[in-house]
Amino acid sequence: MSAYLPPLRDMEFVLRDLAGLAEIAALPGYEEASSELVSSVLEEAGHIAEEVLAPLNQTGDRQGARLQDGKVLTADGWAAAYKTLVDGTWIGLSADPEYGGMGLPGLVSAAVNEMWQAANMAFSLCPMLTQGALNAISECGSPEQKALFLPKLISGEWAGTMNLTEASAGSDLGAIRTKAVRSGEHYLISGQKIFITYGDQDLTENIIHLVLARTPDAPAGVKGISLFLVPKFLVNADGSLGAHNDVHCVSLEHKLGIHASPTAVLSFGDQGGSIGYLVGQENRGLEYMFVMMNHARLNVGLQGLAIAERSYQQAVGYARERIQGKPLGGNDRTGIIDHPDVRRMLMTMKAQIEAMRALAYVAAAALDKAHATADEEGRAAALKFAELLNPVVKGWCTEIGNEVASLGVQIHGGMGYIEETGACQHLRDARITTIYEGTTGIQANDLVNRKIMRDKGASAQAAIATVDALAVQLGKESDPTLKAIGQQLAVGADNARTAVAWVVASAAEDPRLPAAAAVPLLYLMGTVLGGHQLARSAQIARQRLDAGEGDPAFWDAKMKTALHFALCLMPKASSYLAHITEGSRTVMALSAEQF
Amino acid sequence: MSAYLPPLRDMEFVLRDLAGLAEIAALPGYEEASSELVSSVLEEAGHIAEEVLAPLNQTGDRQGARLQDGKVLTADGWAAAYKTLVDGTWIGLSADPEYGGMGLPGLVSAAVNEMWQAANMAFSLCPMLTQGALNAISECGSPEQKALFLPKLISGEWAGTMNLTEASAGSDLGAIRTKAVRSGEHYLISGQKIFITYGDQDLTENIIHLVLARTPDAPAGVKGISLFLVPKFLVNADGSLGAHNDVHCVSLEHKLGIHASPTAVLSFGDQGGSIGYLVGQENRGLEYMFVMMNHARLNVGLQGLAIAERSYQQAVGYARERIQGKPLGGNDRTGIIDHPDVRRMLMTMKAQIEAMRALAYVAAAALDKAHATADEEGRAAALKFAELLNPVVKGWCTEIGNEVASLGVQIHGGMGYIEETGACQHLRDARITTIYEGTTGIQANDLVNRKIMRDKGASAQAAIATVDALAVQLGKESDPTLKAIGQQLAVGADNARTAVAWVVASAAEDPRLPAAAAVPLLYLMGTVLGGHQLARSAQIARQRLDAGEGDPAFWDAKMKTALHFALCLMPKASSYLAHITEGSRTVMALSAEQF
Repeated sequence: MSAYLPPLRDMEFVLRDLAGLAEIAALPGYEEASSELVSSVLEEAGHIAEEVLAPLNQTGDRQGARLQDGKVLTADGWAAAYKTLVDGTWIGLSADPEYGGMGLPGLVSAAVNEMWQAANMAFSLCPMLTQGALNAISECGSPEQKALFLPKLISGEWAGTMNLTEASAGSDLGAIRTKAVRSGEHYLISGQKIFITYGDQDLTENIIHLVLARTPDAPAGVKGISLFLVPKFLVNADGSLGAHNDVHCVSLEHKLGIHASPTAVLSFGDQGGSIGYLVGQENRGLEYMFVMMNHARLNVGLQGLAIAERSYQQAVGYARERIQGKPLGGNDRTGIIDHPDVRRMLMTMKAQIEAMRALAYVAAAALDKAHATADEEGRAAALKFAELLNPVVKGWCTEIGNEVASLGVQIHGGMGYIEETGACQHLRDARITTIYEGTTGIQANDLVNRKIMRDKGASAQAAIATVDALAVQLGKESDPTLKAIGQQLAVGADNARTAVAWVVASAAEDPRLPAAAAVPLLYLMGTVLGGHQLARSAQIARQRLDAGEGDPAFWDAKMKTALHFALCLMPKASSYLAHITEGSRTVMALSAEQF
Repeated sequence: MSAYLPPLRDMEFVLRDLAGLAEIAALPGYEEASSELVSSVLEEAGHIAEEVLAPLNQTGDRQGARLQDGKVLTADGWAAAYKTLVDGTWIGLSADPEYGGMGLPGLVSAAVNEMWQAANMAFSLCPMLTQGALNAISECGSPEQKALFLPKLISGEWAGTMNLTEASAGSDLGAIRTKAVRSGEHYLISGQKIFITYGDQDLTENIIHLVLARTPDAPAGVKGISLFLVPKFLVNADGSLGAHNDVHCVSLEHKLGIHASPTAVLSFGDQGGSIGYLVGQENRGLEYMFVMMNHARLNVGLQGLAIAERSYQQAVGYARERIQGKPLGGNDRTGIIDHPDVRRMLMTMKAQIEAMRALAYVAAAALDKAHATADEEGRAAALKFAELLNPVVKGWCTEIGNEVASLGVQIHGGMGYIEETGACQHLRDARITTIYEGTTGIQANDLVNRKIMRDKGASAQAAIATVDALAVQLGKESDPTLKAIGQQLAVGADNARTAVAWVVASAAEDPRLPAAAAVPLLYLMGTVLGGHQLARSAQIARQRLDAGEGDPAFWDAKMKTALHFALCLMPKASSYLAHITEGSRTVMALSAEQF
């Protein structure tokens, strides 16, 4: 079993120096987020992650969630850990204070979520889903629904779930068949939903399911989907619990990872219809889902980062302790951390983790600005940027999270393949992150077809221009590290600029070309935007070193890590560009029968 | 569960047109390998793979191997499947006819192994290990040892194992502590070995363990290791079985994958000492291991290819059947195989599988030439080429095998994460291949420090020159596909040439630089040498199309697949080169404490 130490120093650096915590805290509504409060929130959340959640990660994986006599039982220790979150009102960290939330910026919540997901992803999916559900009700629910459901969701006394997928409706939500038939003040819901994370559990006295379904006369496809609130136990007007609703867990999935997170098949309406309440208006369900999607996808991107950090810490620990032979250039039989190829893997992990963290936190800050900036124009500009980053953070951080978790296994050698070591649990857990909440392909399509095509690449090119401006500036620095970073970043920015222009232009030739280029473009954008954040880090590190501020070893490492990314990982941008511009036509070259 | 269909058409193409089966069959000793015989061997092996081994793959994974009352029990159906191999004398396919083998080239054996590993890797490890053991005894054993042990190993009545690893001796075999004390005609072995594949089982009446151990007065490190033959049951002079030797399975590992392959901790000498017989001479054990290493590593490389093929077949099947939305440019709700991003993944899988197969079979053919070419000079030249390819095939094919298996999961979306689907078993199984028989880092060190440094890059540059010659030739073709392939291949060859020269030169600056560059160089060589084989394929395909020979759809696919590799995957070579020449110095830039 491996310990988890919250990487507070890097988190604080990114929050303050890259994501602009002070700027966010100055926005209307976020006045509570003082520097001191944020530090103490992070420290306390770190204690919970390290001491309460992390020790349950491997035991939970082995025991898993179980379905017994129609009830879902979570792993040993889950209930007590959950109570810790409820007692600290952690689940409502960034929720509306009117309903009991703490009203902190999403940026702070992102940092806290990173730690919880790193400590125990299978556990932390439960509060993550509740946060998604309470966001949906906050944004789209009626005043009565808010009053009745938000306080208990925010406190964590009740949990929330998202019910989208059906057996024939995965990426294609238009194919949803679950029915909702009006019956007086409520609807009767019937159908079967699959892949429902924490669809049932024994942690909370009630569960509020948010369910996508179709009314009898709804238009076909995605325009005929409505959103319903379906409580596991009906809720009386005074907030007390009534009868068990007609919704049941039919089975739990046997998955590659996140064993302790119950993934349920939920059956609605076996006995005539679950009672459900319409959220917002009929046929606008998908639109409401999109309202929450930015936060939900950011959170999954954070999981990629989180698992990567956890894997990295375990790998570093093993590499320090494991002795095999005498490292080159050394006289002693020291740990394998001194072997160059182990170093290469650790540097690759570290550089990508720091890039992911910076990019994800900057994306969280952009969402906060989109939400709270006083003037509408500022909000709109922030939203555009946040929406551009969103699929990149989700898609790129989860793919890199898998790569890093796999390197974590590799560093352990044969021990990495043994389950007791724990390294391969991270790989198993990470593997879902590129799939749920929209696969990497879906993220890439969102990036290309919504975020880039809608303004013919203008927002993307604006973001790339910002990258390029820094690259030009760094390229003129006398410090050789900054200069080299600037040069590589300039090449990356140029690749990104060319790729975005090509993708926009290619749609006229064949609408399948942008789709074929989408995932390589997402990787390219992740590499360049992540590298941009590391270049910013290096620039700040140089300034702090010159000013004699802080820990020189931290700043020195920051500069060298950014240089490693620039020299070893940024060159991938060129190969992604080639894939996009030269290779997209060959993607569809074969007939389906030729495979 | 997924079926497995042996890809005989591509295998036959690679065997005959790329690996030169006819040339191999003309070598002394391989006269039996007529074209007809090889085809019927492949067809029959394919039947066994498809009908006997593949159906047990998923059931074996679920049941796993078990240790009960000190005995290892294999999964249901294992014994009957094993009997099929014994009945067909399949295990001795390329073994010495003097002892009952069929004496076919290793090239044919490689093709058969690909199918068995694809069908059921956990099962096929057992005969694979036996082949390794019988090779060792063939090469290094005494005439008496050969007479006593080879016939039963070749028939498969007995199995063989390789006992190298100890808790403190993994990659560093010099740290081995298992003791061997001379006692008359034999030695008494004592110590504990870990990670012993099929270290015990219920398939054969006896198991012949090959064990690395150290005699009391042996020099320290790798120069003091000897190789011993330790039967599970002692063997009388007449071949009948005697008493149970003092070797016992203490436990089985709980692994990420290959659940049905028992990975044993073996304890030797708990009751005073296992009886072991010295193979060859004292202190030459490591040298003997190296004799077999080429075949063993080729076989693991084939596992990477095999798992990739299996994952690909399952993904293609799912992509044809799964319907989600209406593909772009189409009018019908057809399978997701028509979605561009799914196509991108399938093309990436297909192109890399065909490159791996070609490279691995060419490497197998080179080993045959190194073994059987009549003149010594020809043998030496073939051996140099085979030895250069060996770590590339092992390292690159297993890393790509993991990538392909992960894409296979991804194509299945949420279903890919469910164990019953079977896609993630391939990923779990594949994950060991980059670790055992020497990690990718160890392969890369072998490539750089032995295969490249020993002649200052001459063999590597000669191989690259061959690639470049084809690139130049294709670059002049009028066919636009061949021309484009030639152009990309030329860039790849140039990258490889520069990288090898840089690595050779860098050693003088700092011996850690070649080690830091080693894995990127291995990837670069795999990409360029694999791409070279696909370019050869495309050239042949063009000729066959022009001549009107064979199935035009197959040749057309071959050309387009090679083009896809050239345009989308070959550009990675440039980013590997950058990592090597620009980034190797940053690999060791941090102190160990800065991680």
